[in-house]
Amino acid sequence: MPDAKRYPPEQLFDFSLAVFRHFAVPPPDARLAAAVLQSADLRGVDSHGVARLHSYFDMLQLGRINPRANVTVVRESASTATVDGDNGLGLVVGPKANDIAMAKAAAAGSGWVSVRNSNHYGIAGYYVLEALARDLIGWSMTNTTKLVAPLWGAERMLGTNPIAIAFPGEREPAIVIDMATCAAAYGKIEMARRAGTPIPAGWAVDRDGATTTDPNEMVEGGALVPLGSDRERGGHKGYALAVMVDVLTAVLSGANWGPFAPPFALRQEIPTRSVGKGIGHFFGALRIDAFIDPGEFKRQIDEMVRTLRATKPAPGTNGPLIPGDPERIAEAERRRAGVPLLPAVVAELRDISRQTGIAFAE
Amino acid sequence: MPDAKRYPPEQLFDFSLAVFRHFAVPPPDARLAAAVLQSADLRGVDSHGVARLHSYFDMLQLGRINPRANVTVVRESASTATVDGDNGLGLVVGPKANDIAMAKAAAAGSGWVSVRNSNHYGIAGYYVLEALARDLIGWSMTNTTKLVAPLWGAERMLGTNPIAIAFPGEREPAIVIDMATCAAAYGKIEMARRAGTPIPAGWAVDRDGATTTDPNEMVEGGALVPLGSDRERGGHKGYALAVMVDVLTAVLSGANWGPFAPPFALRQEIPTRSVGKGIGHFFGALRIDAFIDPGEFKRQIDEMVRTLRATKPAPGTNGPLIPGDPERIAEAERRRAGVPLLPAVVAELRDISRQTGIAFAE
Repeated sequence: MPDAKRYPPEQLFDFSLAVFRHFAVPPPDARLAAAVLQSADLRGVDSHGVARLHSYFDMLQLGRINPRANVTVVRESASTATVDGDNGLGLVVGPKANDIAMAKAAAAGSGWVSVRNSNHYGIAGYYVLEALARDLIGWSMTNTTKLVAPLWGAERMLGTNPIAIAFPGEREPAIVIDMATCAAAYGKIEMARRAGTPIPAGWAVDRDGATTTDPNEMVEGGALVPLGSDRERGGHKGYALAVMVDVLTAVLSGANWGPFAPPFALRQEIPTRSVGKGIGHFFGALRIDAFIDPGEFKRQIDEMVRTLRATKPAPGTNGPLIPGDPERIAEAERRRAGVPLLPAVVAELRDISRQTGIAFAE
Repeated sequence: MPDAKRYPPEQLFDFSLAVFRHFAVPPPDARLAAAVLQSADLRGVDSHGVARLHSYFDMLQLGRINPRANVTVVRESASTATVDGDNGLGLVVGPKANDIAMAKAAAAGSGWVSVRNSNHYGIAGYYVLEALARDLIGWSMTNTTKLVAPLWGAERMLGTNPIAIAFPGEREPAIVIDMATCAAAYGKIEMARRAGTPIPAGWAVDRDGATTTDPNEMVEGGALVPLGSDRERGGHKGYALAVMVDVLTAVLSGANWGPFAPPFALRQEIPTRSVGKGIGHFFGALRIDAFIDPGEFKRQIDEMVRTLRATKPAPGTNGPLIPGDPERIAEAERRRAGVPLLPAVVAELRDISRQTGIAFAE
């Protein structure tokens, strides 16, 4: 990133922590929330780290998020639970619900938790890394504010609805999948818009539902398209995955689904109708030893990683990556050299600092 | 289908049943296998119905599939199990393993079964329809013989690795997702090849890993590409989904993963290396009432279905479909008018008839 200045991850963590504390978020919860944001900044998912802190700040400031949420289990079985997030920070509700899934897995072999009445929970990948640290296979999904048109639709009806899942290796790094179910991220459209460059075909439609390569046409009333982009290349599959995430996170928990998912940022319109409570998440945890010897599993994952890396490369590439490679490489580099922040992000942190009195060292 | 003649689904079921019985498959197992094939024929997934019967016939004839397999649970917990299919027909092992997942769900809220030492299990969708009939949310995945290149790879390393999941509605039809994790089906490449027409960009690469629109270049040493097609449009996501399916079905169970998955048809090469037993499947079942009142869930699914159907249509379309619509429409039509079979498929059934003495009424 040109123009980006680097900041120690600890400094950003401490700043986020102090901001959440400013709104009387209890200390353990504030630490969870700051850790989720830090995870995004370390792993190179810049859109989901402190770049979002001002949005959380706004929502807390306006009282639209409950800083002292009481996260409760409203229904459960041996291997499942439904959690009500009490309109808390998703960054707090998410980790607590994920903990419940992991505890269920410890007792019953697997654990599955659907969450309602929550808010934006940060990167989906954070939760599956928590499971990895406990030698579990973790799953994480969330629905989000509408931004994506169904295949053959001309308006935003679904969120970018990400899916994350991770598998531990022994000597090789874990396979960590963390993907939105749309073809391209909104952030890429925003970047093209600022740069005044066209976007590739297969990323977006305009307000009439026609394919567009003009980022302005997407932003101004258009929509992102699902993974697969169009009918010919499997856009119905990305659309189906987005629906799957919406049902597991929101219908199963009693949250708002599809176009009724409430917005995360102030600039986004509030849906005129509510069909549930807040937004929804879905967490899963599988105990590996409930299926197979964990040592054997990890050795096979190592072998799969090596086998995929040894694939004959396509022209102009160094061959396939393993899911999670880019984030792992970013994390190693950022732990050493610091997190790069663009001037616009620094300006937002400075604004929070001014409004709260919390120091931000430049 | 031009040239296709229609056959009553019952006739095809009875013929498949007799063929499996010919190899001394026990009657209840033979009925299961015939039912899975019939499900594909009814739902319009022509590639997976009796069009595959000759491949099963070949494998049984050569003793490469065990007709009297003893399906066993080799490890289990309250909500999970690992099943060994004893090298049986996937069409028999699959339904039995799926039953175990559903029974676990009844007892523990959810059930998850990973299966090794199996063979081709038919359409992924069959299994989730079985769950639907019991008011469960069913999941089904399988790995398959290598056919897909990882993003940035120039050779076949992964199968088409489908994912199916279904959600029941109350008055509206269920949402039934059944999708391969590649951009386009191999059958479509074969059809273009026979027709001598090019394929769209984003379906395949040639033997050097370069994008191709020549179906011959894919068939002769090339590969299909993952959902998303290329890096720009999210091909790394389809690749990640294929890896996810491979791990859950094969690494977690102790089956052969990736390029080592054994072939289903005789014309496909046998991998030189084995890293497990047979191919793998993964089944899941979630009890809706373990999360939420099932009536409330189904009413919200109805409302979601209606909401998505009411999306403003893209130009030249009637608006979005609901996942499962095309198969449901095909089933209604085929139950009424019969299953259309191409002359090449009829010739294969005739060949089985000649070799076994089982009558096939033309």
